[in-house]
This record gives sequence, structure tokens and C-alpha cells, in this order.
Amino acid sequence: MSLPVTAADVASTEARIRPFIRRTPLLEIDGAAFGHDAPVSMKLEFLQHAGSFKPRGAFANLVGADIPAAGVTAASGGNHGAAVAYAARRLGAPARIFVPEISSPAKIAKIRGYGAEAVVQGARYADALALCEAYMAETGARAVHAYDSRATIAGQGTVGLEWEEDLARAGAVALDTVLVAVGGGGLIAGIAAFFGERVRVVGVEPEGSRALHAALAAGRPVDVEVNSLAADSLGAKSAGALVVEIARARVDHVALVADEAIAAAQRRLWDAFRIAAEPGGATAFAALASGAYAPRKGERVGVLACGGNVDLDKLAALVR
Amino acid sequence: MSLPVTAADVASTEARIRPFIRRTPLLEIDGAAFGHDAPVSMKLEFLQHAGSFKPRGAFANLVGADIPAAGVTAASGGNHGAAVAYAARRLGAPARIFVPEISSPAKIAKIRGYGAEAVVQGARYADALALCEAYMAETGARAVHAYDSRATIAGQGTVGLEWEEDLARAGAVALDTVLVAVGGGGLIAGIAAFFGERVRVVGVEPEGSRALHAALAAGRPVDVEVNSLAADSLGAKSAGALVVEIARARVDHVALVADEAIAAAQRRLWDAFRIAAEPGGATAFAALASGAYAPRKGERVGVLACGGNVDLDKLAALVR
Repeated sequence: MSLPVTAADVASTEARIRPFIRRTPLLEIDGAAFGHDAPVSMKLEFLQHAGSFKPRGAFANLVGADIPAAGVTAASGGNHGAAVAYAARRLGAPARIFVPEISSPAKIAKIRGYGAEAVVQGARYADALALCEAYMAETGARAVHAYDSRATIAGQGTVGLEWEEDLARAGAVALDTVLVAVGGGGLIAGIAAFFGERVRVVGVEPEGSRALHAALAAGRPVDVEVNSLAADSLGAKSAGALVVEIARARVDHVALVADEAIAAAQRRLWDAFRIAAEPGGATAFAALASGAYAPRKGERVGVLACGGNVDLDKLAALVR
Repeated sequence: MSLPVTAADVASTEARIRPFIRRTPLLEIDGAAFGHDAPVSMKLEFLQHAGSFKPRGAFANLVGADIPAAGVTAASGGNHGAAVAYAARRLGAPARIFVPEISSPAKIAKIRGYGAEAVVQGARYADALALCEAYMAETGARAVHAYDSRATIAGQGTVGLEWEEDLARAGAVALDTVLVAVGGGGLIAGIAAFFGERVRVVGVEPEGSRALHAALAAGRPVDVEVNSLAADSLGAKSAGALVVEIARARVDHVALVADEAIAAAQRRLWDAFRIAAEPGGATAFAALASGAYAPRKGERVGVLACGGNVDLDKLAALVR
């Protein structure tokens, strides 16, 4: 079966972007805290540049590419926008990020902090995307898609490659199953493309933002309503077409978690690990901590902590 | 030369406490951000149980020891108290922690959260310590010293053992120099005892809390005034006698950092890494980030991020 992104694509992308990204470490944690009889491997991807996994995909689109004089553009008021701004600055290219008016001032400040121009216009994400596409058509600026491009998927898949290699180097047991939070699905598609049959890949979505769950049920991308605590990072209205093609072949299933379970996971990551996770960054952990994903006896589970771009005032109120 | 704690003591302690502590991971970071031409290795010890390195020393005192019916006791309103409470619960022993009245309600709540009895009495640390000693004399409870005991020092030294082993396993370059924050000095003494001549050990203290700096100048422990942002974790009035004996032989020097540099390091750890560090946990990093420690060309530097028990409201205000 030929999928749009292969393990070899992920491996060649990893070699290309390696100088620009952080190889994020693994933390081995005791499964007993979850009533489980095997250690759990947590990959600390919140330590990545710009606070989430997103720079992997951004660099995969831009390293070695011909960047036009107009530079780079993206539509995003969140982690993707910050990542594209970061990558453009690192590569010496100008960036214009189209940001919907609903975005938080902190995230807009972060995009500007990386030297990008942030155009705050349009009520919703779809409006910002239309502005971005018009700008691209007019100027020739290079757009970076947040999840549904081969380069983006291959870039995010480097998370899986590092994980497998680093467990082997440490002499640790390989993963049976990996839990990955899903928004538009670029991350899980890349990881699933890399792992193939070697590791069971399980998606985790909020009950109120289940684009991939719905797509797997329908057999194609479908629009869903979005209403979740984690909407700022996992709030895609539909999963990408390439994503769904890969996920149908390689993702075992999608577990759903309630917003309360996500908030509880944020609290627990702080109380037990001093990890400040954003809601989307705590969602995979929430599946394990809440029992929405229940491992079999002896199963070796990996949990991805994929983002730390949380408002500290909000986290302080949550853990109080 | 025979020192009170040897590398062999650290190694045997590590084997004994291993089942009870987390092996905290290393993050390789680009030195260029500090104007340095080599990668820097940061050990993420804030991920340890109870949010700091302190459980290592606590377990070193308690695992395999005969714990009397009266249980375990310590005087501390901070990380040591939380660590002893955590370790006692894990080992099934009762714990009574004597906490000075100046301690923050959050830290007292944390001690109680681990199931220990917190006795809040006495204006200052010295008063709490006197109460703890009286309790110990009366009941036979086993006390755990925060820094100046052989077991505590050997326990904290396991940080160095993990660091060396994990760099070797990853095929990474070994450390030339390690930067370690100093309060009473148990941590740096243990690390220096383990590394011996192989790694240059540099202490970092706040300008306003320099017990080890003063002790090395005087050749013996001396009392200092304490007035620093990091006083809640690094605010020892004097370094321990065993600590000073080891440090005179094995610590290269102590670098001093201003409180402003510590706050700037907390901001930078959050902005660039999404690490929520307490002031004392950011102090070693502050030496590198501020230039108080300036590495030589090609020097392989390690920085210990040793604690994450920060009040999130305060950190939120700091990074705003």
C-alpha cells in the first residue's frame, strides 16, 4: 500500500531539519500511578523551540526550499503561527502571519516577538486563511500549511523517529502503543507514517473537537462542531485529506476525553512533574490518566506532551 | 586524600535508591544563544518527585534504614520538607515536619498533601530546627538532615552519576564543567564527590546568599546574611561542615549572580524552553545566561535545573 508520506520521507526530513530543532528528551514514569504494571515513556516535546512540535513541520517546508523575496506566510493565531515565525527568522526570511481577531494577545505578541508581521484581521480562522491565500496569490510568498501537506506531515513525524532511536540508545524497551493528541492531524499522521506496523498509534481528541474521530467513522474528512478547552490548539474543523488517508491505514483508533479530564491532566502534570502544559499538550496524557485509554497488562505505552504554550495566569488558577 | 563521601558511596547509594526516584532526562541546547560555540547539556531535575532533587537525599537516608515507630522528622518549610514527606509516604512511614511560620501556605499545603503532619511553629528556621531536635530526642524519630550528612550528600550526588552515564549512552561528549546552584551545599558536595577530577565543578550562589563562597574564602563554614529572591531554596545561613570539606578539595570556585540575573533566567527558561523554574532552580542557568560564568572556547558545559516549586502566580507576573 502506498501512502502519501513514508517512513523514508520522515527519515530524510529528519536529517534535513536536525540542525534547526531540539531533540526533545524522554522521561520514564512509573505506570503504577495509573494502575498500570509497566513504565510509561513520556516525550517532552513542549521543550521544542516555540513551545510545541510545530517547528518540525515548518522547517520541513522551508529548509533547502527556494524562499521567494516575499518570504513566508501562514494563517494561524496559535502554535503554527509562532512556529512559522520562528522558522522564518532562523532562516533569515521575512514572515507575514494572518491572525484571526479571536486570538489571544499573548499569542500575537509571541508571533511578533519572533520578528514576524502579524496581520490581525477576520473574525474567524477561515477568514484569516482566505486573507493568507490572497496574499500568497498576489505576492508569491511561500505558504506553510498547518497540517495537510506532505512536508508538514513528514516534519511532525520526526517526533516518532527520535522516540524510537532514543529508547534504543538508552537500552529501553520499545513502544507497543503511542498516544498522540489530534487537531488537524499532521502530527499523528507523521508519527503513524513513520512507525508503520511497529507501534500501535492511538489518537486522542477532546469530546468537543473530534475531527479525526468523525473522519475515521465517515471514511473521509467531515466538518465537526468545535467546543473544547483545547480548541486553541486542537480545534480544527476537519482533518486533512492526506491525514485521513494515512490515519485510515495506520491509526488504530481515536480515544475521546472530556474537557474535565484535560483540565485534570494539566493539574496532574503540574503537581507530579512540574510540567506546565497547555490543554492540547495535556490531552494525550489525559487519555491515560482518566482511563479513556486503558493499557493491557505489560503494555509499553508512550505519551506525547506536545505543547507548553499555556497562559500561566490560567494555569495558576487551574492548579490552585 | 580521603573525603567524607566518595564516588563509590554515590554509586552504591544510586543502586539503593534507584527504584524510588526518577531518572531525569538531559536536554541538549545550542550554546549560540549564550555566545558559546559548543552545545550545553541541561539536566531537567525539576521533573523529580516533589519538584526538586531533594528526594534523592531523603531516600538515601531512609531506604534500607530501620525506621522507628515514631517515623521520620525534618525541619523545613520548603523543598526538603516536601521531599522528606514524599519519601516517608512512599516508604510507609509517618512523618512530622517542623515548618517555620514564615513558610508559604502553598509549601505547607504540599507537605500536608504528601500525608505528613506539618507543625507550623517558630518564627524562623532555627526555631523549627530546635523543635525538630527536641522531638527527635523525645520520640526517637529519625531525622533527615537537609544537606550536612553523608547519606544526604551521597544521595544528591546521584545527579552526577546519571548525567555522566546518560551522556555516554547517548554517544554525547562528556562534560568539562558543571554549574550547580548552592544553598547548604549538599547537592554540589555530592556531585563533586562523584565527579572527582573528571569534571570541573562550579557552584553558583546569589550575591545575597553566599554561604559556600564565604566558607571557601574563610576555609571553614561561616555565617552570612541572607537576602535574595532565591532565599526560599538557597537561603542557608552557613554551608555544612562536611560540605565545606568536600568543596575545598573538589569545587573549582563559586560564581555569584545578582537577583536580577536570576529573575531574567526564570523568564528565559520560560520563554525559550517552557520550563517553569523556581528562583533557585534557575540560578545555575543564570550564571551562564548572564555571563557570570563565561565558558572557554569549545568547553562542554552542563547546567542543572534543580527545582520547579515556583508559585505560578509569581512566575506569571515575572514573565508578563
